[in-house]
Amino acid sequence: MDVSPASVQSGDRGPGRPSHPGTFLPGESGNSDDLSAGCVVDFPVSVILPAGGTGERTGLQTPKQFCSFQGRPLISYTVQAFERVPWVQVIVVVVAKENLDLMMDIVQRFRHGKVRVVPGGSTRHRSICNGVMALSEEERPAADRPKVVIIHDAVRPFVEEDFLQEIAVAAKEQGAAGAIRPLVSTVIATTSEGYLDHSLERAKYRASEMPQGFTYDVIYQAYHRCTESDLEFGTECLHLALQYCGINAKLIEGPPTLWKVTYKRDLAAAESIIKESLAQSACLLTGGLAPVTALADVLRKAFVALHMELDVVPDLLGDNARCLLKEWNFIQVSVTSSCLSQVEAVLKALEAANRALLHPPVVIWVRLSSAHEHMVNRTEFAAIMDLASAAKLQNILLYGIQLHRSEDTEQWERSVSRVAEMASALIQNRNPVLVGQLLQA
Amino acid sequence: MDVSPASVQSGDRGPGRPSHPGTFLPGESGNSDDLSAGCVVDFPVSVILPAGGTGERTGLQTPKQFCSFQGRPLISYTVQAFERVPWVQVIVVVVAKENLDLMMDIVQRFRHGKVRVVPGGSTRHRSICNGVMALSEEERPAADRPKVVIIHDAVRPFVEEDFLQEIAVAAKEQGAAGAIRPLVSTVIATTSEGYLDHSLERAKYRASEMPQGFTYDVIYQAYHRCTESDLEFGTECLHLALQYCGINAKLIEGPPTLWKVTYKRDLAAAESIIKESLAQSACLLTGGLAPVTALADVLRKAFVALHMELDVVPDLLGDNARCLLKEWNFIQVSVTSSCLSQVEAVLKALEAANRALLHPPVVIWVRLSSAHEHMVNRTEFAAIMDLASAAKLQNILLYGIQLHRSEDTEQWERSVSRVAEMASALIQNRNPVLVGQLLQA
Repeated sequence: MDVSPASVQSGDRGPGRPSHPGTFLPGESGNSDDLSAGCVVDFPVSVILPAGGTGERTGLQTPKQFCSFQGRPLISYTVQAFERVPWVQVIVVVVAKENLDLMMDIVQRFRHGKVRVVPGGSTRHRSICNGVMALSEEERPAADRPKVVIIHDAVRPFVEEDFLQEIAVAAKEQGAAGAIRPLVSTVIATTSEGYLDHSLERAKYRASEMPQGFTYDVIYQAYHRCTESDLEFGTECLHLALQYCGINAKLIEGPPTLWKVTYKRDLAAAESIIKESLAQSACLLTGGLAPVTALADVLRKAFVALHMELDVVPDLLGDNARCLLKEWNFIQVSVTSSCLSQVEAVLKALEAANRALLHPPVVIWVRLSSAHEHMVNRTEFAAIMDLASAAKLQNILLYGIQLHRSEDTEQWERSVSRVAEMASALIQNRNPVLVGQLLQA
Repeated sequence: MDVSPASVQSGDRGPGRPSHPGTFLPGESGNSDDLSAGCVVDFPVSVILPAGGTGERTGLQTPKQFCSFQGRPLISYTVQAFERVPWVQVIVVVVAKENLDLMMDIVQRFRHGKVRVVPGGSTRHRSICNGVMALSEEERPAADRPKVVIIHDAVRPFVEEDFLQEIAVAAKEQGAAGAIRPLVSTVIATTSEGYLDHSLERAKYRASEMPQGFTYDVIYQAYHRCTESDLEFGTECLHLALQYCGINAKLIEGPPTLWKVTYKRDLAAAESIIKESLAQSACLLTGGLAPVTALADVLRKAFVALHMELDVVPDLLGDNARCLLKEWNFIQVSVTSSCLSQVEAVLKALEAANRALLHPPVVIWVRLSSAHEHMVNRTEFAAIMDLASAAKLQNILLYGIQLHRSEDTEQWERSVSRVAEMASALIQNRNPVLVGQLLQA
């Protein structure tokens, strides 16, 4: 067994890393490396993410772990899912040699401070083996060596902390633990000529999924003892633990979110989940003006009907700065067209808080015009477009909506509900092509 | 075995049915009921679509076969996939009793002339059984009775004609045939206490998928001979054919498009496939004016770079009316603002050809303004919005893009490529909230 991965240590976590890296699923924790006192996982855990796949099943040139969603590769989402778990210490990402530089760039760009990048082998088992051996080379006291190693797939980005915790605890107790899911299709055995031999009774079988957890000793021994044939043709770590360490893994049924991005259609599904997670709420900035406060009530009601929450604050100053850390979407209402400066202030605050690192925030400028005011002229339009182009370079999506005041209550309410409809559509779609447009409500 | 489905015959195919119902996948055929001479499938085939599922795995209230995509329920897409196959005679859709009216409405509304709706049973097998028995009650000469019955899932809308043909031919030859796919996950056997017992060797097993085909005699006998226990707890028709008719089904590996819409994420995947299929090309209507013809060349180049095709014709008159039947997307360029009437003509032509029945066509009005012309005023904007609102009631999505002419070649080219970018984004997203907007290029 040739195990000599030249591991590459990524840079330290930069000071600019946001204190809340953002979550797309419930269960976010703080971002500390310390093991929290009282946490069920009070032992050191490291993670191995084999990411050497070529993605041939998606039919795309780019391996799927490197496909971009909202400007960020899938692997970065998976890394983020582990980095936000406080009791995860080190994340070893194993990539094909030709992707080492690409992966290092991703680590630098998105400041993944817990990641070590390790070159992979020619098969999945060889890659995982490289990851396990890399953990044993860590220059840290043996006492700090991980008690449990979690192995996951780079292309299962939606794993949640509470499930990771279940796997880690069961692995520590049983030696090995793995996620399972019910079978979606009946599994059948085929004859060598391509005919049905028999079908399996679905209730007795499960699909083996990821993550899987092992005590360090079990996974280390399993890979030390296994044969070249295992490394070449095998795929299932639980099987190695059984065969070479006599450990029957504890199986835990996981949620559907554990699914693996496999086919091209899965890219659309993943994108929709990511977008949905960013579109659950927005922060309405009223400027503290009375007419806008009235608008806020109507907007809030419309958002609730669309299953979105709306925080309403006058601005992002003082205590309200907490919205900067919580929200991905901002709606700034201004009563005069000169108030593009208010939008500029929001953009500056987002940049200062480094909020556009992991996801593009959406900023919507609602321009509240008097009933008889003209629509914008070309100079005003060019100003919005220029601002939006500059914001886009900072990974912030800026859109405009013009709302004309009306004495006619019914017409006013119709317009306001159109603002809500358009704002939520812009927030849900995050379409970069439409930035800088001034839509009419 | 209680088999008494009260079948409900749907109305005849209406005269308004479009001669080309549209395709979202390659392999479309004409829409004739006649068995084409020379076709490999020269025997009568009927289809059973069990659609009684409750969709609990999507976590939604609406069963997934009734979830809407572009204003049309998923089951209608699946029905369409079979209706466009000329050698498919009858499609029996089996639905839960409480959904009979809903399904009849869908059949009427989308003019599915080959469909018969039959009430389902309490399990999947009982529902399919009802479908098989309904076929035997057809009031037609025995010679016309289907030779082969294809059973499919209502929630696998993307099945293609060439694969259906493979299944039908193999079923006729072997008595039974079924689609298989490679296993995505390792399948494991569990102990009763929830531990790993053993894992199956992936290469020896396959996932059994749909469609499956049977000679009428085999499927009829299988359901006649099977036990109450089979009907209550079984799921696999191939298994019944083996057990009760001694037929080892021929297994044929199908494409990934056979996948079953199962989880909530699959709804996003299905929507993305449907949208992509509608966004492959567009028809640019130039009005025959020289400046627009120059624009057309630039647009065409930009579209090619976006993997979209662009047909360029002056209008939809004469021979060019073929574009009405081929395209789902139209871009009308006008040089003066009075030419909203050209857009009205496109809308009328689409309505006259009944093109908005199965999918919403996109119409984009590109308003070519002189360099110093003002942006539209509120009256002009209201005119576009009113036209778009009326079109939306006809299931047509109308958007506007304003393009300012420029003497500066570089600026002009930048603007034109923005038109292409925005037009393709509007065509790809088909967002109903943005209809009637006049975007600025």
